[in-house]
Order: sequence, then C-alpha cells, then structure tokens
Amino acid sequence: MIRFTNDYSQGAHPDILQAITEVSMEGNFGYGCDPHTERAARLIGELCQCEGAAIHFLMGGTQTNMTAISAFLKPYQAAIAAESGHICTHETGAVEGTGHKCIAVPTKDGKLTPDHIRQVMEAHPDEHMVQPKLVYVSNTTEWGGFYTTGELEALRQVCEDYHLWLYLDGARLGSALAAGATTLPDLARLCHAFYIGGTKNGALFGEALVIVEPALQADFRYHMKHRGGMLAKGFLLGVQFEVLMEHQMERYLAMADHANQMAGRLRQGLEERGYPFYVDSLSNQIFPILPNALLQTLEGDFHWEVTRKMGDGNTVIRLVTSWATTPQEVEAFLAKIPHKTVELHEVI
Amino acid sequence: MIRFTNDYSQGAHPDILQAITEVSMEGNFGYGCDPHTERAARLIGELCQCEGAAIHFLMGGTQTNMTAISAFLKPYQAAIAAESGHICTHETGAVEGTGHKCIAVPTKDGKLTPDHIRQVMEAHPDEHMVQPKLVYVSNTTEWGGFYTTGELEALRQVCEDYHLWLYLDGARLGSALAAGATTLPDLARLCHAFYIGGTKNGALFGEALVIVEPALQADFRYHMKHRGGMLAKGFLLGVQFEVLMEHQMERYLAMADHANQMAGRLRQGLEERGYPFYVDSLSNQIFPILPNALLQTLEGDFHWEVTRKMGDGNTVIRLVTSWATTPQEVEAFLAKIPHKTVELHEVI
Amino acid sequence: MIRFTNDYSQGAHPDILQAITEVSMEGNFGYGCDPHTERAARLIGELCQCEGAAIHFLMGGTQTNMTAISAFLKPYQAAIAAESGHICTHETGAVEGTGHKCIAVPTKDGKLTPDHIRQVMEAHPDEHMVQPKLVYVSNTTEWGGFYTTGELEALRQVCEDYHLWLYLDGARLGSALAAGATTLPDLARLCHAFYIGGTKNGALFGEALVIVEPALQADFRYHMKHRGGMLAKGFLLGVQFEVLMEHQMERYLAMADHANQMAGRLRQGLEERGYPFYVDSLSNQIFPILPNALLQTLEGDFHWEVTRKMGDGNTVIRLVTSWATTPQEVEAFLAKIPHKTVELHEVI
Amino acid sequence: MIRFTNDYSQGAHPDILQAITEVSMEGNFGYGCDPHTERAARLIGELCQCEGAAIHFLMGGTQTNMTAISAFLKPYQAAIAAESGHICTHETGAVEGTGHKCIAVPTKDGKLTPDHIRQVMEAHPDEHMVQPKLVYVSNTTEWGGFYTTGELEALRQVCEDYHLWLYLDGARLGSALAAGATTLPDLARLCHAFYIGGTKNGALFGEALVIVEPALQADFRYHMKHRGGMLAKGFLLGVQFEVLMEHQMERYLAMADHANQMAGRLRQGLEERGYPFYVDSLSNQIFPILPNALLQTLEGDFHWEVTRKMGDGNTVIRLVTSWATTPQEVEAFLAKIPHKTVELHEVI
Repeated sequence: MIRFTNDYSQGAHPDILQAITEVSMEGNFGYGCDPHTERAARLIGELCQCEGAAIHFLMGGTQTNMTAISAFLKPYQAAIAAESGHICTHETGAVEGTGHKCIAVPTKDGKLTPDHIRQVMEAHPDEHMVQPKLVYVSNTTEWGGFYTTGELEALRQVCEDYHLWLYLDGARLGSALAAGATTLPDLARLCHAFYIGGTKNGALFGEALVIVEPALQADFRYHMKHRGGMLAKGFLLGVQFEVLMEHQMERYLAMADHANQMAGRLRQGLEERGYPFYVDSLSNQIFPILPNALLQTLEGDFHWEVTRKMGDGNTVIRLVTSWATTPQEVEAFLAKIPHKTVELHEVI
Repeated sequence: MIRFTNDYSQGAHPDILQAITEVSMEGNFGYGCDPHTERAARLIGELCQCEGAAIHFLMGGTQTNMTAISAFLKPYQAAIAAESGHICTHETGAVEGTGHKCIAVPTKDGKLTPDHIRQVMEAHPDEHMVQPKLVYVSNTTEWGGFYTTGELEALRQVCEDYHLWLYLDGARLGSALAAGATTLPDLARLCHAFYIGGTKNGALFGEALVIVEPALQADFRYHMKHRGGMLAKGFLLGVQFEVLMEHQMERYLAMADHANQMAGRLRQGLEERGYPFYVDSLSNQIFPILPNALLQTLEGDFHWEVTRKMGDGNTVIRLVTSWATTPQEVEAFLAKIPHKTVELHEVI
Repeated sequence: MIRFTNDYSQGAHPDILQAITEVSMEGNFGYGCDPHTERAARLIGELCQCEGAAIHFLMGGTQTNMTAISAFLKPYQAAIAAESGHICTHETGAVEGTGHKCIAVPTKDGKLTPDHIRQVMEAHPDEHMVQPKLVYVSNTTEWGGFYTTGELEALRQVCEDYHLWLYLDGARLGSALAAGATTLPDLARLCHAFYIGGTKNGALFGEALVIVEPALQADFRYHMKHRGGMLAKGFLLGVQFEVLMEHQMERYLAMADHANQMAGRLRQGLEERGYPFYVDSLSNQIFPILPNALLQTLEGDFHWEVTRKMGDGNTVIRLVTSWATTPQEVEAFLAKIPHKTVELHEVI
Repeated sequence: MIRFTNDYSQGAHPDILQAITEVSMEGNFGYGCDPHTERAARLIGELCQCEGAAIHFLMGGTQTNMTAISAFLKPYQAAIAAESGHICTHETGAVEGTGHKCIAVPTKDGKLTPDHIRQVMEAHPDEHMVQPKLVYVSNTTEWGGFYTTGELEALRQVCEDYHLWLYLDGARLGSALAAGATTLPDLARLCHAFYIGGTKNGALFGEALVIVEPALQADFRYHMKHRGGMLAKGFLLGVQFEVLMEHQMERYLAMADHANQMAGRLRQGLEERGYPFYVDSLSNQIFPILPNALLQTLEGDFHWEVTRKMGDGNTVIRLVTSWATTPQEVEAFLAKIPHKTVELHEVI
C-alpha cells in the first residue's frame, strides 16, 4: 500500500538512525545535559541568528504545545487560535487540560489575521472573561498554507499593540522554510517562541522549541519535567537535531523540499486531469476534491485521510508527502486517476 | 439612580434576611450538616417529585458550574455549550481551569438544538479530539429566552442517543418557571443535573444543585470542598432555600413572576413607542435597540449594560428587572422614552 | 446542647446582620465594585499602615488559600507548610487541585521555623523536583498557637534568603491579634500576603486578603473569578468588613478577645481540676486531655471535636470558643468536670 | 569516564537499534495502530497470563505515572506513596500538576506495608480531606529494594479492604524480575495496573503500561493524548517491546540479570573491602557509604550520584549498573578502592 496518510509513517532518515547508533554506546548524562544537545542548541541559535534564545527539545507536537503554552500563560489567560488550529481540534484538550481556554476563531483557510486578533481582544474587555494573551499560529497551517514573513510581521505588530505573545507551531515548519515563505532569523525576530518540527520531517521523533523572549525563558526545564516532557535519554534528541541542523540545516531543508516537490507533482497531475482543490497549498499537504466513485477504485492500493464529505458525490481528501515519498509512488497514484469528464455521473 | 443593570443589585428579600437573623444564634453544625439544609433539600426533592435526587447548596453560579462539570466529566471530556453560554463567555475560563474544554456552538439566540449536538458529535469521532460528554444549557438563556419542556425533551433524547449528560444552569430558572416554560418535575425528569438559582431571585446568595442521575451523585461533597465551594456556615444556604421553597415555592415564584411582569411592562412600553428588539424575550431580561442619542439623555438617571453597538447610531442594551424592581422605576424609565420618529437623525 | 465544636456555629454578630439589612435595598454594583467594598478595603489599608496593599474579599478560607496560592505560584512551584497546616490536611486537596504540591513538614506544634525552611530548600536543588516558592503559615495555628512578630521576622528573613513568598492564613487571626502576638502593621511588613478571617470571628462569611507584595497584585480579580471565588453581591462582603474594621477594628478585636477569654476560663478551670493539655494554647482553641469515661458523661449536653485517641483511656479533644460563647456556657461545662483523682481507673 | 550514574546513559541495546532500523521504512499507521504495537501488546498479555489486560506504550516514567494516576483517580482522590517514591520526589510535581495530592509516608527503606496504608486510611475519614484511593509502589524501589510476591499479596489485601487501586511503577522492574522477587503473572494478579520499564533496561525509550483492572481501562488512549503522551510514531515503541518481550522476554531478563550481577560484583567487592551500605539491595542500585577522602580520589575517572552526606566524613553514594556495564568497568572501580582501615582519618 502506498501511503499519503501523513508524514510520519516512516521511522527516520537513515542518517538520523546512523547517528543514533553511533552515539548509543558513548555514555552521556541524562535529561539533555550532554554535548550533543548542547551542540544542537548552539546550531539552532546560530541558524536563528539569535544566540540569546533558549532552546529545548521535546518529544512531540502536542507535548510541546501544552508545555509551552501552559508555561507562558497565567491561569486565567487564554490562547487565540484558528478554529482549525491543532491545539483546538487534534490534541484532545491537552491545553485545556493545563487549565487554559483556547479561543477558536473561525477562518476560511486556517490563518489568523490581525483583524481576527483585534476582534477577539475587543470581545474580552474585563475580568469576567478570560484574558487572551497568546496567539497560536501553525506554519504550515493545518490546511497546508504558509504564513509569510510579511504576514508574521503584521501579526507581531498587533501582538505588540495588545501585549500578546506570538507562538508558532512548527510541526511542519520545514515545508514553509523550504518553500521560502519565511526564514529562521525572521521567525526569531517575529515570534516570542516557536518550534522546529522534527517528527514530521525525517527525525525519529523530536521538536526543537526556541524561546526567544527572555521573559518566557525562566525555569523552562522545570515546566518540561512537570508536564512529563523531559526525556531521560535527552541526548537522543540532541543527536537528531545535530544531523538535521548542521551544515546550515542542509538535510532538514532537503527533506522538506523533497516533500514539497512530491506534493507539487501530485497537485499538478490532479490539476492537469481537471480536479479542483478545496484550498490552495504549496506545501506537502494538498486537499483535492475527488469523486467518491474514483476514490473507491483507489482504496486498498493507496491510503489518505478524508477531510470532508461534500455530499454531492465528492470528497475532500488530504494527501501528504514526506522526505520518504518517492516519485514512483506519486506516478503510481496519478496513473490511476483519469481525466475528469463532464459525462461522468458520480453517485454519492 | 434606577438600575436595570442586573438582578443582583439588592441584598435579599426581607423574608430571607429575617430568616437568617432568626437562625443566627441557634447553633448549628457546619458545612451543611444541619436541619435547615436538610429540610431545604427535602423540600426541593418534593417539588421535583424526585426524592432520589442529591441536593447540594453552593454560593454562586460560576462555582456551581465549575464544580458540577468537573465532577461529572473525566479529564479528556468536554462540555458542549452555545457560544453565548455563561461558561463560554463570562466565567473567566473557570471550567477550563478544571481541565475541560468547552465546545462553543454558534447559535442565533443562545439556544442549543438537537441538530447542534449531532453536528458536534459527528465532528469528534476519536481519541485525537476531546470527547464531548455534557450538554450545557441555561434556562433562561443569556439572551433571555426559555427552553420549554418540549425542547428539553428533544435535547434529552439526543443526549440518550450519544450517551451525554444534560446539565441545566438555572441561575435565572425562576423566570422560566414563573413564565410556565417548564416545571421542576419536568426538569428532574429530563436533566441529569440542574441548579435552581437563588442569587438572582431574592436570596442573599446561593444556588441549589439537583443531581438527578445516580451515577453522578457519588462523593459530591468531596468535589465541593476540593473546589473551594463548601460554605463553613452552610446553614445560611439551607435557611434561605427553606424560605424560597416552602409552600410550594410560593415566594420564589412570586418574586420571579414580579420580575417578569416588570420586564414585560418595559417591553410593552418600548414596543408601543416603536423600538425594535434584538431578540424576543418573555423573561426578566430584554434587549431593546435604542438610539445612541436617546441613551445619552438617560445616562446618570438609569443604568443598564451595553450588549452590542450596532454601528448605525443604535445600541442593543440589556434591561434586567428583579423582585425588587418597582412599577415606579419602570414608569420613570418609560416616561423618558419618546416615540421613535422617522425624522430623528441619529448620529453614531 | 452547648457547642465548643468550632467558632462558626452561629450566623453573625447582630451588628453585622443589621448592617447587611440596612444595605440590602440600596442598590449596588456587583462583584465588589461598590462603595462599601471600597471603604472596607481602605480601612484595612489604613489599619495595616500599608496603603499600597491590594485588598480582596473572598467567601471562605479554603477558597482564599487555593486562589491566592495558585495565583502566586508558577505551575512547577510548591508551597511549604506544617504537616498540620490547613492546606495539607483539611482542604480536600484544593491547592493540589490547582496543580501545586504542598510540601508537608512534620512539626511538634504546627509551627514552621527557619530551620524547617532551610531543610526543605536544601532537599530541593533542581528541576527534577518541585521548586518550593511559598511558605504557608496560619496564625493562629491549627494547634491554637501564635506566631509572634519576632518569629515572623525570622521567617521573613529566611524567605528573603531563598526568594520565597511568605503567606499567612488568618482564618483565626483575630485571636492572635487580640492576644497581642502580632499586629496588622507587622503582618503587612513581614508577609507578602495574608488574610484577615471574618467567618470565624463574627462575620456571616468572608475573608479579607491583603496582598502587600506588588509583584503578586496583578490581575488578582481574574484569578478570583477563574476559581469561582468572586461573589455576585460583593457588597455583602464589603459591608461586613466595614463593621469589623471601622473604629480601629474595635468590634473585630472585642469579639476575638471575648473568645480568647472564654477559652482562657475553660483552660484555667481544667487546669485547676488537674487535667493536662496536649499543647499549650492562649488562643480560642484549647486541647485538653480528658478521660474517656468523663467524656461519656458530657455527651449530649456538650459538643466538641475529637483530636486524638490516646489509647490509654484518655482522649485529646478540641474546645473552641467564639464571640458568641457565654460565661454561662463555660461554667456549665466546668461544673460537670470533677477534679482528676489518682484513684480513677480509666478504661480504654 | 566510567559511569555508575544511572541505567540510561547509553542509547539502546544493538538488537533494539537494529529492529528500529529494519522497521523504519516499512510504512506504518501512527499512534500505536500498527502490527508491531499489536504484537508487543499480545506478547505482554501472554507473559502476564492475562489476556484481558489493556496494554499501552508511553515514552517515559514520569509521563506514564502522571497519565495513569490522573486517569485512575477522581479529582479529589489522592495517591499514597512512600516519601521516597518517585512521584513524591523526582517528578517535579507532575502528579500534583494533574490535580492530585500524593500522600507521602515516611519509611525506613522506601517500602510501603499494609500498616502504613491502614494508618493513612484511618487519618482520612471524611470529605474535609482528600480521599486516598491509589497505592503507589515502585519495584524495584528508589532504594534498590524489591517487593516480593508475598509482600504484594499483603498490599493487595489491604487495598481490597479499603477499595484502593494498587499501582506499581516498574521503571526498574527488570531487576526485580531477574532476581526472582516476583513474576509478571503475579503482578497481573495482584496489581490493578503496573508498567514494565524499557528506558532503564535496554530500550531507546518506552514503558509498557499494563492495566489489568477492567474498570480502569476505558478510553485510556484519550488520557494519553490529553496528557501529551501519545507518540506519533507509536510503532517505534511497539518494535522495541517486540524485541524485549519475544522469546519469553529473554532479552529483557538477560539484560536485567547482567545489571544485577554487575551490581552484585560491586557490592561484594566493597563488602570484602570493609565498607558498609546504607540499605541492603540485591538490585542494580547499591548505596555504599564511602569516605569523602576516598571519593575525591575517584572523581574524574568515575561518576555516581551523591545520595546523602553523613556529616562524619562519609557519604552515601548510589552506584547503578545496567545491561551496558562491563566487568572491566566494575573491576576498574574496585581496583581503586583500598581496604577500609581503622587508621584512616577521614575529614569531612
């Protein structure tokens, strides 16, 4: 079966596995107090051109989001996120589990704008309501879109106006960076904190949290341990991010670029065959609208996630590519897709 | 100044104050283990025709909601509420503070329908999302509307279908009962738990939580103490609800009926003068749309809450009456309201 | 039945009830935004000789402790308390319910010393453990003892050394103040925050939290609402503390002094009759050790709490007096107590 | 440097690394919904002779403890643990962070007895205190001791008497199993839930939680996701536990046995040289008392953790061995240890 299910169906890039194997018998102190973690953090600081940043490594996205957001907020403060934001929809209430409301903003494409933020702030004037204090964005978004540097500048400005923290979930940051939407130095300049996702871009597991804002840095290791997010063998995270980040993050960008290209080829192939998309996306996630009848013919050979049943005989599906997706897999998929014809009578 | 600000501007009905004074020097055990609390609970059980119900007395609405909802849900479970629901908007994230997401459903009038519930349930299929488990409704609603017995029957049915708890916030239940929208026996038949509000209907403070569902009754006093909601002098709650509930809750209904009538007179007067309303309401909260220029003339003599600025020179305001509102106050207000004329050019 | 069960068996001092009755129909804004609350806060600030203090009124001790402590601590920080401290033993895990560990220190008499604090701090060196950040003391203690000004000075010094907050639970502060153990200006000078208990000294309910430390003052009303601790009719708290605090807190001290004297008479009477005490106490709580056989003869006529069964035919009981205890009640009790004789053979 | 610091200084046993490498490119569904996880769970069920058990894989000990304990308890319920228990001392308040008190019981050797439990239960009679509901034990304990099957039977009996859950932290279960202290079928018979530690016995990371009690099994995957403990690439956990558990858990036992033997050789060597131990231990953790002057000569070449400074010129240190400790490392250490002589004057 060929999987376009997600970008974490494989273990890790062979270079990552080899590095883990090499480091395995070295002997290292636990909990991230080792030279690999130190070097990985230094590399990230340099790439961000922000050596004052505090860098921490956690095991997964939900864990990173809940640990960071609960560390950054006081009990009565809330996060603002797009209704489609990962913390709102796909984390089983992990942020609320730490006591904080996520204010969900309906959006067309999963992207927050300064106007969204202003409206939320005006609707929360006093102590009878939560105090919105953190803006959560994901880049790429859950709909495969990017926040450009310019868009992030506008968000940061509105955050300054209202004394809000700007926090960016970079579970799929590689895709946005490889596509040129933004850069690490720009993220470090514009976000108070963000994370660089490893799990979905070639690492076995791991996310690198970059806390730029000094006021948010204190005692973060306490927060990690308190939320169950400090890995005993922290050097495993360090060595992986050494591989991903060294040489100007060459491997990280190459893997993300490959994923983007594979998705681009899928998109182009589907467009050529006449199929529409639910949203535009230049990232490694695309959302074509395909006839149910066609999808039935693909089942078993291919796997994807259903995003939305349209009720008119079509379904929005999500196709995700990764560093491990091959051109052959893409071609095999497209080979099964006929040109969309007017005559085709689809049944629901 | 005449206040239509809310229904808790006064202390308590004189009968309540007298009863507290009479009981003051009796000597009673603390924490609700006294004969007044016992009798008040028994009276409520009888009025509900549900003597298996567990009755507990708490001090305020937010406290009751957060204690009950956190007691009824497991950590990963969520409450479903109208976006305008009190737990979503006016409790400073108290429910989230206990670890639970409130799923906010946009509605026209603040009322949930079975279709709303079904849509939420279909959107939450698995463990990557919170598990919706409790439906929160308020009666009367935050927009002054009622859930009728028939509407509650439909909600209970959908709750049965999806194994959800139906919980009703009765901060202003008196208004709904006095208007005949529903009855205590119907509430006890249809809700798994609900509360009878005292604070907003003549008590000094206090809400009576009725837990009908046996599966939700265990150890509730532990929950109360754990959330800081067990009053040392619990007999103060007991004696107040004795006064409110005795004689077939005569005083409770009379006070609520009076509040409804005062609001009705205000509504009628404004209608006669040609002013529209933002939503229909037969309860003690009404939402007229008045010109900003007119409102300026009323300031200082009267007080109200602004609900929404329309941006066209008009404002939706909320007028609330209570057991303590006098016909003279209502007439004094209406006396200052001219007939709406076409010629009037309002400025924003 | 004559109750020495606790100091909250009665409602409130008649002056309090009268003040509530007088204010009842005034019309006041809700949530503590009223002139009574304002005046009560001003009076307390003046009594403390600390007008920069932020004063807030809550409904009970557990609620005040959990709201204040969770407001003052970050998620990974802990409170240090005597093992017998109210937050450790009698609040059903309310502080832990907000996410914070209470580090329980075994003590002989329920009082923390600087050495206790130092030992705790040395045992908590790094991020694999909670970070102790707040010292909780109660004055009077749960064993009826006082912290003197000198003892509080020593505690404050050690708090300075380790960057800890000193928080004082004053549920029974009246007794300590009336006995001259310390003063409000000293408390305001030495504690970062403390509360002045109303519930156990003549108020219907209510505690006045004094936050002296500016760093702990921000947004406290948000915390109150978030934890369910903001009373709708906040003016009820204001008016009670006006009565208690006006005229140099004359009524407050007089009631506490009366309670101390009644306990002193009980203590003296028991001493004269030859009975020992489990701990020394000059406050309104005393802990005599009485023969079980004697206690049996008192049951039904008097009520007390059992503190500890000694297993040798004796029991430590707690006798509590209050502003409402009468000399006649004390004499009635002593009249039933024979002189302790050597011959008496007690059975377990 | 030779490390006796802990049992997680290395990555993983080569067989584990090879298995991960082999599975890496297979393509698997995420979140533990894959055949490796399924098989690992089945193997564990068989080894436990308890196929009704629910098996879940998490990433580390603190995460497993906080997720399980918060899943098993209601908000007002507490865990009972030895004061030295990992949840009490070394998890930065993670369990309290989920809202639950840990009741710390002072013990001599880190082991709870039925009497300890009974005393705690008698001290917690009503709703003004937390309700103790779960007994936490670790096997091996933090002091290197074992609970035998007989001791666990006695604990289970007292748990039955008081309706408590018995939960066993098996971070170092391998050592206890390899030493014959107990068996998996006995654990499954006597504990309501327990976990089999991978991190400290040759896995890269991972703990296998075995929930035996049906009443505790429902919706556990929701709890995992809610607490940030569901690994995207769950198959990495599955494949590791396949290696550890297959062939009657041959590799798991062999690695633990090796660690025990290495510690035994250290213990024997130190005993022969005349040094005492702070506690007895047959596991892979030993606690010799060594002169400070001697320790100074070892620094730089060897690493250990300081457990307690005795203040008499001696220090209790912890030496930990693992599957990766070599006989050469043990001999190198012992070669530096002279026989303890009376003449040696140690300085503090």
